[in-house]
Amino acid sequence: MATGMATPSGTFGVKILDLARKLAQLSELPDGLSCTYFSPAHKAVAAQLRDWMRAAGLDAEIDAVGNVVGRYASSVAGAKSLVVGSHYDTVVDAGQFDGRLGILTALVVAEHLHRSSRRLPFHLDVVGFAEEEGVRFGAPYIGSAALAGRFDETILQRSDADGVSFAALMREAGVDPVAIQALARPPRTLRGYLEVHIEQGPVLLQHDLPLGLVTSIAGSARFRIAIAGTAGHAGTVPMALRHDAATAAAEIVLAVERRCTGIATLVGTVGQFDVPHGAINVIPGACEFSLDIRAGDDATRDAAIADIFATLADITERRGVTARISEIGRHAAVPCAPAMQTALAQAVTRAGIAPFHLASGAGHDAAMFAGVTDIGMLFVRCGNGGISHSPLETVTAEDADLAARVLLDVLVNLD
Amino acid sequence: MATGMATPSGTFGVKILDLARKLAQLSELPDGLSCTYFSPAHKAVAAQLRDWMRAAGLDAEIDAVGNVVGRYASSVAGAKSLVVGSHYDTVVDAGQFDGRLGILTALVVAEHLHRSSRRLPFHLDVVGFAEEEGVRFGAPYIGSAALAGRFDETILQRSDADGVSFAALMREAGVDPVAIQALARPPRTLRGYLEVHIEQGPVLLQHDLPLGLVTSIAGSARFRIAIAGTAGHAGTVPMALRHDAATAAAEIVLAVERRCTGIATLVGTVGQFDVPHGAINVIPGACEFSLDIRAGDDATRDAAIADIFATLADITERRGVTARISEIGRHAAVPCAPAMQTALAQAVTRAGIAPFHLASGAGHDAAMFAGVTDIGMLFVRCGNGGISHSPLETVTAEDADLAARVLLDVLVNLD
Repeated sequence: MATGMATPSGTFGVKILDLARKLAQLSELPDGLSCTYFSPAHKAVAAQLRDWMRAAGLDAEIDAVGNVVGRYASSVAGAKSLVVGSHYDTVVDAGQFDGRLGILTALVVAEHLHRSSRRLPFHLDVVGFAEEEGVRFGAPYIGSAALAGRFDETILQRSDADGVSFAALMREAGVDPVAIQALARPPRTLRGYLEVHIEQGPVLLQHDLPLGLVTSIAGSARFRIAIAGTAGHAGTVPMALRHDAATAAAEIVLAVERRCTGIATLVGTVGQFDVPHGAINVIPGACEFSLDIRAGDDATRDAAIADIFATLADITERRGVTARISEIGRHAAVPCAPAMQTALAQAVTRAGIAPFHLASGAGHDAAMFAGVTDIGMLFVRCGNGGISHSPLETVTAEDADLAARVLLDVLVNLD
Repeated sequence: MATGMATPSGTFGVKILDLARKLAQLSELPDGLSCTYFSPAHKAVAAQLRDWMRAAGLDAEIDAVGNVVGRYASSVAGAKSLVVGSHYDTVVDAGQFDGRLGILTALVVAEHLHRSSRRLPFHLDVVGFAEEEGVRFGAPYIGSAALAGRFDETILQRSDADGVSFAALMREAGVDPVAIQALARPPRTLRGYLEVHIEQGPVLLQHDLPLGLVTSIAGSARFRIAIAGTAGHAGTVPMALRHDAATAAAEIVLAVERRCTGIATLVGTVGQFDVPHGAINVIPGACEFSLDIRAGDDATRDAAIADIFATLADITERRGVTARISEIGRHAAVPCAPAMQTALAQAVTRAGIAPFHLASGAGHDAAMFAGVTDIGMLFVRCGNGGISHSPLETVTAEDADLAARVLLDVLVNLD
């Protein structure tokens, strides 16, 4: 029988939503939320989080790369750390919960432990990661990569839209790149990593469930594909003599959809599709489109890619067109640790919720800690049809409350 | 037994190609052919054509709207006129034969009749129409519409890319719009209309035939279609929960292709296709594409449109997306006169060529004369895979020669 902690139902959720709303007031936009790396709004959010952490009884600081780290220290000498966090930066015109829900959930739970004088056998490190979205420098996970020992110094040479390099930004902040590398947590000091995050999709909503257990963070592969056919007069070239680049591409788009449908965790998306210089009365001689394939495990993803490209070869050969395929990115899937999945599933069950497993199609800070320590992720239902990266993003106080109570349960029962 | 005229084989063709080459030197572009309405190059071409016509023994003038009209008068008092012509304006970066082949073929044939002192029972009016492509004012057939009594005065209010109105252009040229309307030929004065034109497609090339008999000028209908779906994260929305505007559009594109394939003269083209603001990692929430449907008769075209839109409705309903369809143009098919088709077919047969009938998918000046007088069109094989509206457009001297000999045969045997 697991050890529970009595908590007044509902108080966590209301507080989380209130804090998220207050945090969203600090923005680069006058009438929407935008908080990108090292902007004045971003620095204000970091200071606010640090102050809230301190008020909650944590020993909190902002580190060299901008992460806000608040420790609720263990009573055990030489204890390891359990990192519980997510990111506080946002996309442009963002919702209030992407990233921040995970920080604030950890914060209210840590505060509850402190007020209850309930010590844990590990340090609880509540972390607000400074950068996950990749908006300013086109490189995501800056904050979590630093703590996970994966900070890539090639980012120092990257510049933002105004031509400000990352290196210049660090110099201005008085930060030596060596200090960023020094943030790396030695794996032996880590008990694990947990992250609560809004689902950013419609699956839990469709299943009428407030919480979901993440099995893995999907791997992805991205391509740009250019089809070359033969342009021609829309009136004078009979259908049988055409080598239309766009109809070939359309057939490939539907092949992607067909191959990726009905297989758990697999998704395939053609997000960009264009006939360059297309005219209403000209048969397309060229067509360009993007392809994004993701799956909860790499074998599923790679089998789909192989099948899709075999079908593409059949289609282009049959239609007398050619394809140029450029791979522009490939990232391996990251499984969540079975022990963490089990701990979360038990807590969810104790909260009276059916344990429901799903893969995360989006990337998260947790992925940086995979291979460094055991990771686990808890998804919270996303309202409004599952919309995220939008002001329409919503989480209910009830669901946030359940997430906090499950996190608390996991913490007090983990060891 | 039809009356033939002995002509030295090959001389017509070489001369036509030589004249086309010379005419192409008069261009708005330093390194390509462009000859748009009332440009200096356009006026130079008109003067050149008039001079050539006069040298060939025709009574030639440039009329109010810029048409070059050269008459080889009949020996019969009160004779009607047979108009044989095509256009001398071009698209931008054009080939040498689109339009001009028809004028030059008529010119060399008229010259041959003059040199042979062979009079016809009708006036032979060789016409170089001033404007067919619609490049400058976005309104095609200006020249042929004027002679056919179909000049639309609303064009006077149209302006070109530099803001010059058609009305201003006419004032500058000292032309009263009344003079343009006065160009209209009363139908009772017309014996018929014949046009030789490069096919601008690959059908004759595929059939290994130099000439083709046009049955009709295809009718067309054009639409813009906007699909509205639901945008979403490419990683987090399972395939079964998507309402992807682009996959819906892709399915419609293939339905257009399938419905239009295998039916003589019917063609369907999606020349423009775009996912506005598409991103590689975002499920398309919107997609826009064009649709151009043509057929040799309106019933065939309209049946295809009805079936395509029924399929579109099925696709959008099944996928949970919506479509907005805007019709932006519809033109009836124009049949060629059976008597003219027969006259051309007999001459083609006498030339030792199998008579081959096809519809014209592109519009031509001939369409303006339909309903005014009997029209007939002879297509000449287009080389280089059938490419037109391009510097790669080609006609061989042998094919041009055959076209001229067939035209000559028709003229001397028509009545």
